[in-house]
Amino acid sequence: MSTLGIAVIGAGRMGADHARRIGRTVGGARVVAVADPDVERAKEVAAGLDGAYALTDPAAAVAAPGVGAVLIASPAAAHEEAVGYALERGLPVLCEKPLAPDAAGALRVLEAEQRLGRRLVQVGFMRRHDAEYRQLKELLDGGGIGRPLFLHCRHRNAASPPFFTADMLLGDSAVHEVDAARWLLGQEVTAVSVFAPAPSSLAPEGLGDPRFVLMETSGGALVDVEVFVNCGFGYEVRCEAVGESGSASLGEPQALEVRRAGLRAGAIPQDFTVRFADAYDRQLRRWVAAAARGGVAGPDAWDGYAAAAVVEAAVAAARSGVRTAVELAERPPLYR
Amino acid sequence: MSTLGIAVIGAGRMGADHARRIGRTVGGARVVAVADPDVERAKEVAAGLDGAYALTDPAAAVAAPGVGAVLIASPAAAHEEAVGYALERGLPVLCEKPLAPDAAGALRVLEAEQRLGRRLVQVGFMRRHDAEYRQLKELLDGGGIGRPLFLHCRHRNAASPPFFTADMLLGDSAVHEVDAARWLLGQEVTAVSVFAPAPSSLAPEGLGDPRFVLMETSGGALVDVEVFVNCGFGYEVRCEAVGESGSASLGEPQALEVRRAGLRAGAIPQDFTVRFADAYDRQLRRWVAAAARGGVAGPDAWDGYAAAAVVEAAVAAARSGVRTAVELAERPPLYR
Amino acid sequence: MSTLGIAVIGAGRMGADHARRIGRTVGGARVVAVADPDVERAKEVAAGLDGAYALTDPAAAVAAPGVGAVLIASPAAAHEEAVGYALERGLPVLCEKPLAPDAAGALRVLEAEQRLGRRLVQVGFMRRHDAEYRQLKELLDGGGIGRPLFLHCRHRNAASPPFFTADMLLGDSAVHEVDAARWLLGQEVTAVSVFAPAPSSLAPEGLGDPRFVLMETSGGALVDVEVFVNCGFGYEVRCEAVGESGSASLGEPQALEVRRAGLRAGAIPQDFTVRFADAYDRQLRRWVAAAARGGVAGPDAWDGYAAAAVVEAAVAAARSGVRTAVELAERPPLYR
Amino acid sequence: MSTLGIAVIGAGRMGADHARRIGRTVGGARVVAVADPDVERAKEVAAGLDGAYALTDPAAAVAAPGVGAVLIASPAAAHEEAVGYALERGLPVLCEKPLAPDAAGALRVLEAEQRLGRRLVQVGFMRRHDAEYRQLKELLDGGGIGRPLFLHCRHRNAASPPFFTADMLLGDSAVHEVDAARWLLGQEVTAVSVFAPAPSSLAPEGLGDPRFVLMETSGGALVDVEVFVNCGFGYEVRCEAVGESGSASLGEPQALEVRRAGLRAGAIPQDFTVRFADAYDRQLRRWVAAAARGGVAGPDAWDGYAAAAVVEAAVAAARSGVRTAVELAERPPLYR
Repeated sequence: MSTLGIAVIGAGRMGADHARRIGRTVGGARVVAVADPDVERAKEVAAGLDGAYALTDPAAAVAAPGVGAVLIASPAAAHEEAVGYALERGLPVLCEKPLAPDAAGALRVLEAEQRLGRRLVQVGFMRRHDAEYRQLKELLDGGGIGRPLFLHCRHRNAASPPFFTADMLLGDSAVHEVDAARWLLGQEVTAVSVFAPAPSSLAPEGLGDPRFVLMETSGGALVDVEVFVNCGFGYEVRCEAVGESGSASLGEPQALEVRRAGLRAGAIPQDFTVRFADAYDRQLRRWVAAAARGGVAGPDAWDGYAAAAVVEAAVAAARSGVRTAVELAERPPLYR
Repeated sequence: MSTLGIAVIGAGRMGADHARRIGRTVGGARVVAVADPDVERAKEVAAGLDGAYALTDPAAAVAAPGVGAVLIASPAAAHEEAVGYALERGLPVLCEKPLAPDAAGALRVLEAEQRLGRRLVQVGFMRRHDAEYRQLKELLDGGGIGRPLFLHCRHRNAASPPFFTADMLLGDSAVHEVDAARWLLGQEVTAVSVFAPAPSSLAPEGLGDPRFVLMETSGGALVDVEVFVNCGFGYEVRCEAVGESGSASLGEPQALEVRRAGLRAGAIPQDFTVRFADAYDRQLRRWVAAAARGGVAGPDAWDGYAAAAVVEAAVAAARSGVRTAVELAERPPLYR
Repeated sequence: MSTLGIAVIGAGRMGADHARRIGRTVGGARVVAVADPDVERAKEVAAGLDGAYALTDPAAAVAAPGVGAVLIASPAAAHEEAVGYALERGLPVLCEKPLAPDAAGALRVLEAEQRLGRRLVQVGFMRRHDAEYRQLKELLDGGGIGRPLFLHCRHRNAASPPFFTADMLLGDSAVHEVDAARWLLGQEVTAVSVFAPAPSSLAPEGLGDPRFVLMETSGGALVDVEVFVNCGFGYEVRCEAVGESGSASLGEPQALEVRRAGLRAGAIPQDFTVRFADAYDRQLRRWVAAAARGGVAGPDAWDGYAAAAVVEAAVAAARSGVRTAVELAERPPLYR
Repeated sequence: MSTLGIAVIGAGRMGADHARRIGRTVGGARVVAVADPDVERAKEVAAGLDGAYALTDPAAAVAAPGVGAVLIASPAAAHEEAVGYALERGLPVLCEKPLAPDAAGALRVLEAEQRLGRRLVQVGFMRRHDAEYRQLKELLDGGGIGRPLFLHCRHRNAASPPFFTADMLLGDSAVHEVDAARWLLGQEVTAVSVFAPAPSSLAPEGLGDPRFVLMETSGGALVDVEVFVNCGFGYEVRCEAVGESGSASLGEPQALEVRRAGLRAGAIPQDFTVRFADAYDRQLRRWVAAAARGGVAGPDAWDGYAAAAVVEAAVAAARSGVRTAVELAERPPLYR
């Protein structure tokens, strides 16, 4: 097995993180090129990696000698183009979510991939690589709690970054639950309603934080999601699946239990990088192993498209205040 | 303090339970009379209680010598009449929920009590007497987690009794969450939506079990309730309150933690009599103490009426499939 | 069933508590007389109880008209004498632990009871009435985790009262674990070792707090007890039983789980009155029911004696620093 | 940073595991040579690794071109010799525990390293790299629970392998707690006592499983360890540190919480490879990073020696049944 050369597109927080992970926790791979419009940022990331160089042009990075796979962590608007460069060369891609800013863009990626005739695009929904989510998936698939009736989800951040918008509550946060629900249940989302309490006075004005998203699925399950990105106390992702004969919950982090001053307490992680560190590592390792064989090992372009379509319906539902059906294109044979 | 004589109306399961509790766990009170149309049943209950006698007529029981307070545990249809007997004599009443089968009946009780000019009627929403619910109420009232945004509630029974109907899912089960939410938040419910997954194949045909009830409140909170009365694994009442600066959860029962055969496990109570045994005891003790002074110590007739009005809206919402506003009468001065 | 009249001997904290419990949470019983050398204290306790009167002489209280059973909550030095008054009259007794200040005194009580020929004395080891302890006992007796190998016990108080001594660490605190171990295992303690870390600088000088007590039993189990009466953070009684095929733990109190400021926390009770409130209630109810039939319903005089003998050995072991055998008298037929 | 070439000595279970980890989860390192007396086994391990070759002679493996560090996972009896080969060449070593089969052997390693004048030897006590242990260490070092008084430790395996002996209970199992206690407390162990219940009938005859080890430390703390290698239900490592002002517990694994059939349950890992997978990964990553700079990043040869000395005392204590002092050589300046 020789070493897989990777081009990293985007040297922001996620790109830098991924590049570092490849250098530190993934055997059999190395970063060959780092591309970012801000070349200083690209250089900074490349500097920590033996033999990687920096450029500004994503097409050039994808075309660089020794590149066998492409990791895309640029802003969403740039994803479609970068995926295109990789597909042109038949290279496996790991694209950070979303696959494209809207469902139409995601559909175009689907079409390009279909023209190629094989699945090369993987989307970075990293929860599918989390140990607990995988245990839950296995339990559900094995019938361990019977047919699923509910998924009760909580998605909380201590505080939202300054640039966060009301639509990002759905497209950046709840989208993880959209993918997780589709994957866990093996069903499509058919309708979405969005409710909201009076917004928290501790959240930025106009953000409309928190929200309560209610999804109906093709198999008759209900998925509710509390999205609260300024909950104040930490980062929490929890999910309880309720089936006909039992329930299963994930999301209590492992922590020291400290007794002090009348309390029995454990710390809550402040950040997704703590909670999902292992999931990011495993996602990269699995993708590298699959990419070395020319394939993918995780959510594919169809998953990226379906999530985008549900988010679009959710945004519409949030604006109209009424239940909104999700209209999906027909699933092409390549993705069945 | 002399001993308070109590007439128990209804000698079914709840009536028998209450009568036994008075004899065993409440000081300062004794059962004087037990009334039930089935006199054998009344006799059976009275037999275990020193000095109690059995009759069939509730009016006669209320009027019996030595009766200073009335506990009503007959079927819902008989509540209004029995409350009337007690009010005629100015006796404190503990009436099992519901106060009346519908909001109109409950309103008539309100009117009768207003004519009397003082609050004598307490409704048996026993969760208000549960230690954990009271801790949560105290935390919320003290601002411990900021303004409440969500209550996420679970109400699960191992299996429903044979006579259970789709409406009872709301009127007998979810009604506890209706009252708990009103009490915890100190707000009225303004609208209700009812969602449902495809019914569990393990629940009786036609019951439409489980349901997902979503309530909006006058203070801008959202209350969601999973009601699942054939969940199979046991009796579970859980509630997470999410506020602007924190969250608080109740409902993990105290249990031995047993490690065996690869599992770390604790038992789930099979029945509300286990989970709320102490709440029933405390409800009776507090009511007896209050009744001895001519008053009430818990949810009053207005609470009984408001819960009935919300349930009526929920039943309508479940049938129509659309969000339904709750129309409440104006709150009379007596209940402010 | 007529009402059982009870004489309460001792109107200190425990006596007052017991008297209040009888009035409030026990049906079928009432306090007839309260005796205390400090008559004002006795009056204060009696004042809250309908029809009870106060005196200074325990013998007179026991002999008072209407007294059918005796509850002893005076200082340890006075127990033997008070038990004697009750036995003379053939009255059932609930005696707070210890049965006597030393094993010799306890032996004399055994002898008096044997002369009488029936068991009338119950000792107030209230943990046997705690729901969790009873579940553990049932699990062990049913072979649920196989033959017991270890009991790992923790006994922690937030702070010790001013009068607490090094010997009381063993005779007042660890004695509960001595009884619980004997009862849970159905075995006698055969040897005791006492270890200690360097004493906590936050405990009173000279108290030698905490201690680590290691007991060996007749059936080959090991029982270790951390006794720490100035642990600072609250009251904690925990026990893990480890058997040949599993383990079982008790002692995590039911509490709201609150998420706030980066922590997931639950309160620790500050006091045994919170943790064991229900156990005290049940102890009284069971004793009243048994006493009304002339018997006992809990640890008997032999249990009181055996605990005293183990504590004596533990005190010797703590002083000598070496493992000390426990010498028990032969168990009389009355207690087999 | 160029890639660090590693010679792996020993191709048994641990050696194969380590070699695989280097290939999969460690950036910047690769296995150059695998040595094992059984050359087929060595070949099998090398086969999965790009560019590694197999040999039988450890000295030749250490001397192979491109080797910059040595990982020793051969049987304990071969450790001292292999460490010698590495020290001769001035190569950093990660040696699986124990450093040597006895304290005398460990002392000779110390001497060899002192002659060299720098610390090159790291011992594979992997718990120091576990996230929870590191949180506990940080809490203790920061004074978060005051001066430590107790460490209560549990070390349980589902079942012991066929070759396991009574001495291995101490030297292979409890030795982890010996190192963890020394490290967490920053103190040496000064005396050891070993107690035992009647052995479990489910453990192999003659193994004397379980044991209870009690250690006293130079700073006045007490460390108790239940070692039970045939507990039946799974792999469990737990530790509660009790300090003057609080306590902290580690060891509840993160697991799905499943409600089914009257139980709330989570799985217990069956094996240390699950529980400590991340610790093994991190140990290797930290060692590779340190070895690339010519140093160590974890327990050193002194730690290996001290653990061996405590185990020797524990074996003596187990045989004699009495408390046994630990005699340590003076700590050489190199290790201060």
